Amino acid sequence: MPSLMTRIGVDLPIVQAPMAGTSTPALAAAVCNAGGLGSIGVGAVTAAGAREMIESLKRLTGRPFNVNVFAHRPAKADRERERAWLDALKPVFKRFDAEPPVALHEIYTSFLADPAMLELFLETRPAVVSFHFGLPPAQAIARLKAAGIVLFSSATNLDEAEQAVAAGADAIVAQGYEAGGHRGVFDPAAPDSQLGVTALTRLLVNRIAIPVIAAGGLMDGARIAAMLDLGAEAAQLGTAFIACPESSADQPYRDALFGPGASATEMTALISGRPARCLPNAFTALKDGALRGVKIPDYPIAYDAGKALAAAGRAKGDGGFGAQWAGQGAPLARAMPAAKLVETLAREL
Amino acid sequence: MPSLMTRIGVDLPIVQAPMAGTSTPALAAAVCNAGGLGSIGVGAVTAAGAREMIESLKRLTGRPFNVNVFAHRPAKADRERERAWLDALKPVFKRFDAEPPVALHEIYTSFLADPAMLELFLETRPAVVSFHFGLPPAQAIARLKAAGIVLFSSATNLDEAEQAVAAGADAIVAQGYEAGGHRGVFDPAAPDSQLGVTALTRLLVNRIAIPVIAAGGLMDGARIAAMLDLGAEAAQLGTAFIACPESSADQPYRDALFGPGASATEMTALISGRPARCLPNAFTALKDGALRGVKIPDYPIAYDAGKALAAAGRAKGDGGFGAQWAGQGAPLARAMPAAKLVETLAREL
Repeated sequence: MPSLMTRIGVDLPIVQAPMAGTSTPALAAAVCNAGGLGSIGVGAVTAAGAREMIESLKRLTGRPFNVNVFAHRPAKADRERERAWLDALKPVFKRFDAEPPVALHEIYTSFLADPAMLELFLETRPAVVSFHFGLPPAQAIARLKAAGIVLFSSATNLDEAEQAVAAGADAIVAQGYEAGGHRGVFDPAAPDSQLGVTALTRLLVNRIAIPVIAAGGLMDGARIAAMLDLGAEAAQLGTAFIACPESSADQPYRDALFGPGASATEMTALISGRPARCLPNAFTALKDGALRGVKIPDYPIAYDAGKALAAAGRAKGDGGFGAQWAGQGAPLARAMPAAKLVETLAREL
Repeated sequence: MPSLMTRIGVDLPIVQAPMAGTSTPALAAAVCNAGGLGSIGVGAVTAAGAREMIESLKRLTGRPFNVNVFAHRPAKADRERERAWLDALKPVFKRFDAEPPVALHEIYTSFLADPAMLELFLETRPAVVSFHFGLPPAQAIARLKAAGIVLFSSATNLDEAEQAVAAGADAIVAQGYEAGGHRGVFDPAAPDSQLGVTALTRLLVNRIAIPVIAAGGLMDGARIAAMLDLGAEAAQLGTAFIACPESSADQPYRDALFGPGASATEMTALISGRPARCLPNAFTALKDGALRGVKIPDYPIAYDAGKALAAAGRAKGDGGFGAQWAGQGAPLARAMPAAKLVETLAREL
């Protein structure tokens, strides 16, 4: 049985994490062309937007790539909770002479409710499609597999990994608690096992029969080697790529990544409505201020407010309310072109 | 410069974690005689008790060993808080026809306030003395070093590690968030960085000039190898040794370790007054019951109540209130004699 990466047609055991909103087709292409598996995240765009991203990625590389979607239970609106949330945010918007939105909307369509996205994948056939937050219905999985697409599912514990195996996933992205961005837990209301990448990867390698890709706080060749020692077939790195010029991270995000907050990343649900690991900033500080004790609207309804607040701040020159996702590896981030980073990782490995 | 373990005179890059209350001189001796660094924890006993443990360990092995102490700020009594805590626990004691203690005491003396323990170490000269929860004063460190004793300090983040280096520690035990038992944070009132062992170890290896010993969720040779890849000079394993016949873990603890809770360890301060990672049991469940929202007495004053409750339960055949510490590696625990476990780890490595 060839290894997972050989089967996909990728030389290095390195996956660049999808990072919707931060990764770009240019970043993914640079990674692919350097021998890794580049990824784009299309969870934050429509099928039409995803088509554009996939087409530009295909113009930039002929190599296999990964397209990631959010497979969460669609949001439950709760007008009263959303109203209270906006009321609590009102004084924060006021700092920027702005008003909160009048109402909040479910700004992203879950892949579970997006038949156009499924058809797009069947038509464009990316080498890999990966799922975050859960799994699509059996029929969608069957059609993607029949089209020859390799399927990754994230998992934060053994139970989620077993669900993914049963559903037909080809590999598990074992997301450790160290990982930046959204925690992939299938049920955000359940207690979080908070498993670190070492414990999780080793557990899954021992207990499930499909390949494991380790993720969470991995920034350099030594950490990739460590994950391969545990039996992972590859390592997925996100935060390592934020500072690449090809990412779409804005300057305040890049500055924060190299600031003192890098050693103090926080898990917060305030920005989007689901727990995500973030650099501490003015937004995360609202937990002890305007948003203390206020019930958070469902994901991604809360994110509508979060993005509006970030925009209001940016309009007045304050970049501290952005979704500055980062993992626990942040203190060792390096700013270099993606191709050079992949080459460096391969050499360190 | 010889490696840390060579300098100490130990063949394998394996440290058996001290685990006060669970490790024994017999366990430590078996590890030492098999080529690892065995440890005893004397944080829970007086200098007289520690002398007995050190003497019995010396009878069982001629090899170097490690003696661990708790170097926390001595407890602050708060009679009102302790009264409220005992009141909240009263109905739980009642389940076992028992009464809570009339008052709570600081059951352990911090090494910071225990000159007799310092004198004992200077007299008995264990190869290694290790500190948990903080660092003793400069004079104590200077005297221990002058006696030729190698000093380890735990650290959960870069700042603590830098304090330990400045104080003269010879090595850092990098305690990842995965680790079982008490979180070694120096200041339990400050926000916890919750760094996983991979991110923490790699950060410390990059940023500090003394050897790093990785700890947290490490159960097998593959994980030890992974930590060595990160630049650690050794790995410290605790949970891996709980199921050894030489440990003093009682049967309910051993049963819990091999039960379903192993995949769902929790960080709780309810048992002792400081955060510690534990198998979920009847005690940890009190967070949603009798102890919900009740302010926890200072460490180790709360532990006085915790131990009384565990004893009351045990007297009626309920072992579910014990301090069943375990790390996130628990699902892959193995029950075998310590010598065989060390030999197995070395072979896997």
